[in-house]
Amino acid sequence: MLEALKKEVYEANMKLTEYGLAPFTWGNASGIDREMGLVVIKPSGVPYADLSPDKMVVVDLDGNCVESALSPSSDTATHLALYRAFSEIGGVVHTHSPHAVAFAQAGRDIPAYGTTHADFAYGDVPCAEALTDEEIESEYEKNTGLVIIRCFHKRKLDPLAIPAVLVKNHGPFTWGKNAQKAAENAAVLEIIAGMAMETEMLGGRTPVGDKLLAKHYLRKHGKNAYYGQK
Amino acid sequence: MLEALKKEVYEANMKLTEYGLAPFTWGNASGIDREMGLVVIKPSGVPYADLSPDKMVVVDLDGNCVESALSPSSDTATHLALYRAFSEIGGVVHTHSPHAVAFAQAGRDIPAYGTTHADFAYGDVPCAEALTDEEIESEYEKNTGLVIIRCFHKRKLDPLAIPAVLVKNHGPFTWGKNAQKAAENAAVLEIIAGMAMETEMLGGRTPVGDKLLAKHYLRKHGKNAYYGQK
Amino acid sequence: MLEALKKEVYEANMKLTEYGLAPFTWGNASGIDREMGLVVIKPSGVPYADLSPDKMVVVDLDGNCVESALSPSSDTATHLALYRAFSEIGGVVHTHSPHAVAFAQAGRDIPAYGTTHADFAYGDVPCAEALTDEEIESEYEKNTGLVIIRCFHKRKLDPLAIPAVLVKNHGPFTWGKNAQKAAENAAVLEIIAGMAMETEMLGGRTPVGDKLLAKHYLRKHGKNAYYGQK
Amino acid sequence: MLEALKKEVYEANMKLTEYGLAPFTWGNASGIDREMGLVVIKPSGVPYADLSPDKMVVVDLDGNCVESALSPSSDTATHLALYRAFSEIGGVVHTHSPHAVAFAQAGRDIPAYGTTHADFAYGDVPCAEALTDEEIESEYEKNTGLVIIRCFHKRKLDPLAIPAVLVKNHGPFTWGKNAQKAAENAAVLEIIAGMAMETEMLGGRTPVGDKLLAKHYLRKHGKNAYYGQK
Repeated sequence: MLEALKKEVYEANMKLTEYGLAPFTWGNASGIDREMGLVVIKPSGVPYADLSPDKMVVVDLDGNCVESALSPSSDTATHLALYRAFSEIGGVVHTHSPHAVAFAQAGRDIPAYGTTHADFAYGDVPCAEALTDEEIESEYEKNTGLVIIRCFHKRKLDPLAIPAVLVKNHGPFTWGKNAQKAAENAAVLEIIAGMAMETEMLGGRTPVGDKLLAKHYLRKHGKNAYYGQK
Repeated sequence: MLEALKKEVYEANMKLTEYGLAPFTWGNASGIDREMGLVVIKPSGVPYADLSPDKMVVVDLDGNCVESALSPSSDTATHLALYRAFSEIGGVVHTHSPHAVAFAQAGRDIPAYGTTHADFAYGDVPCAEALTDEEIESEYEKNTGLVIIRCFHKRKLDPLAIPAVLVKNHGPFTWGKNAQKAAENAAVLEIIAGMAMETEMLGGRTPVGDKLLAKHYLRKHGKNAYYGQK
Repeated sequence: MLEALKKEVYEANMKLTEYGLAPFTWGNASGIDREMGLVVIKPSGVPYADLSPDKMVVVDLDGNCVESALSPSSDTATHLALYRAFSEIGGVVHTHSPHAVAFAQAGRDIPAYGTTHADFAYGDVPCAEALTDEEIESEYEKNTGLVIIRCFHKRKLDPLAIPAVLVKNHGPFTWGKNAQKAAENAAVLEIIAGMAMETEMLGGRTPVGDKLLAKHYLRKHGKNAYYGQK
Repeated sequence: MLEALKKEVYEANMKLTEYGLAPFTWGNASGIDREMGLVVIKPSGVPYADLSPDKMVVVDLDGNCVESALSPSSDTATHLALYRAFSEIGGVVHTHSPHAVAFAQAGRDIPAYGTTHADFAYGDVPCAEALTDEEIESEYEKNTGLVIIRCFHKRKLDPLAIPAVLVKNHGPFTWGKNAQKAAENAAVLEIIAGMAMETEMLGGRTPVGDKLLAKHYLRKHGKNAYYGQK
């Protein structure tokens, strides 16, 4: 069942550790089969070295375990909320990569300071509002997804144009057309977070500017993109 | 004698260098057999590449060398003081990992700024008071253990919930149910110390909040934990 | 056609990833055959692992694709502008290496704080002025080259003595007598940018001084150089 | 001639690149045979990968090349000045390791903030005064040695107890009983420089204290040392 997706999600999870984004068991990648309405995700707390495609867990969009001897990632409900709200995404990733976590712990958006950022996201990467005590106490993981979605709705952000978010005092979630792309976005997010921090250490606080932001984002994304091969 | 424990302590010592926490000979791991009242610890000043399980040193809880041609770690008396005071721990580790040392040299607790910290420790990681001149001059290593214990008693901290401490102007000690877990805790401590430093560089100074701290700590630890596999 | 140059440019591109300067597909190296007036450059958006000498793209100095099934780097027009203006250079490199990007995003020159810098460049590495909105909207990549050239003309800099520049809110370009040297210069630039940042974090703001700058630069470069083997 | 010393000096040079202290050709190690009054040193500008024991250059204490087809390191005169002045040292190393360079470029001593420092040096690592313009223009490398020596004399420092120095706006020199130990000291210096920088970023500025400094230094060095094996 879903062999191809399991393999892809397995490989995306392995990318997290290969990129150095997920020490120990801290990080998880998932992918969705939209037609079947099923999500494949990392099992909870299993070391990357012990993973294999057949250990990936299959859940439906309500979180019911469809197939697996193992429990799914404890963050599964966050992934599912994102899949339900952002209908065009095919993969979700969560990590505790350090520079992104630092912005999340500081409760700050990652400002778009340059073209490296613009190549990745069409604007600042937002830091969502903190969860209320009630949201933490009941259905915490689902509510984590809901504060992300609320943040994107309130700020009128397009999740395809901004493929990442920070959860306050927690860390980043990224997404993409599939699990592999979501993992790549997690790696890029970590790089641009580090660059933004160093920019500020050098006294820089000036955003990239709308024209340059648009130029670089649209050079790589959308129907007029001219980066890469046809 | 104690072959299994020697192997485990050997492997924990090797983890320190594998994690990049202990350049040269700077770091040591130990484990205890509570029934026999014996502690197995790294020999002093021996490069990691030259270690093997049979070179581990066995001492009793008073520091008497029970078996070994080699001298035990110069920090042995600190380990023993911790084993005597914290009856539930099975392994102790000392390193000079740089971010944790930086907090120790600044004489500061590592504040719990986010969930990465909360997944590891149920509150700030304390920096113990400096040793007095008298404590430095006589039985320095034992007294290093005693200032740690005093710190935990004064602040009413549970060593199982806060598995790490900083010794002022010196560096970190960590512990856990066994040597392997103490080594893993040393690695996690270094990561959260780095994240805390970067958080402050970004202007962040707001702790994670009691509810989120409890949620994440208890999600992973204790009888209601639901992280990982059953 | 141009087999030797293709091999050299291929190897220079591979150096970028080996030096850790170009994650994913972010970076490109080119080389020129001055006699033929042809430039060999990386194809756009192709992962480094998939490159080979025969995939390098040949273009003329007006940007016409002379030989290749693949599209050239999207930054080709910048490379060409530099080759046209700086007649003595034989290779050009563009990266998004993080410390150099941080200076570019802060809109700052990299000050010559010490001899490591002086061994590399005979003065500060300039950050060029931002492109105007018009320059961004039309022929962006060519205009990126033109602001670099304008910067060097205005400040009366010798591109052989200062083999690097920062494009504001973007990142570094470097050059050299060939593609290999341009790639090496990209690596050195990243190192001296990191050192300059750390110098400032320690409170340092004093330039290296004219005499020491000259001593080190001229010890390694020019007709009286005495560094290295004859 | 001097086969054993050449091998040792070769290995010390290779350690510099293995420790990550010397990218490209930036760094050199030497060793002395005090009885013969001969120094073995890295050839100038030769990549580490191309080195071998027989490529090491032999010079006398006046800098005359005794044996070699290759030119000695351009920094040879600095090494020789140190050997002449510090009669008990057997090896010298120069690198451009980044954290140490940052302190040198900031013109600052590396303060002894903790026990990691105290295990290595019995006090702050000094930053020597800048060379005068005259000292730069004539016999620059020899004068670099002389400002180091002047610094140690003025401050009444024992080069055995403080095995490192920073040359202002330049970088570190270290030494030891032999080339291998000098290389190890270069690695330790870089680590403690990084720790000192991070300590200050966390607001720490309090030195380790005389008693703790003495305890750790003397635990590892001198006739009452008890660290390591007998």
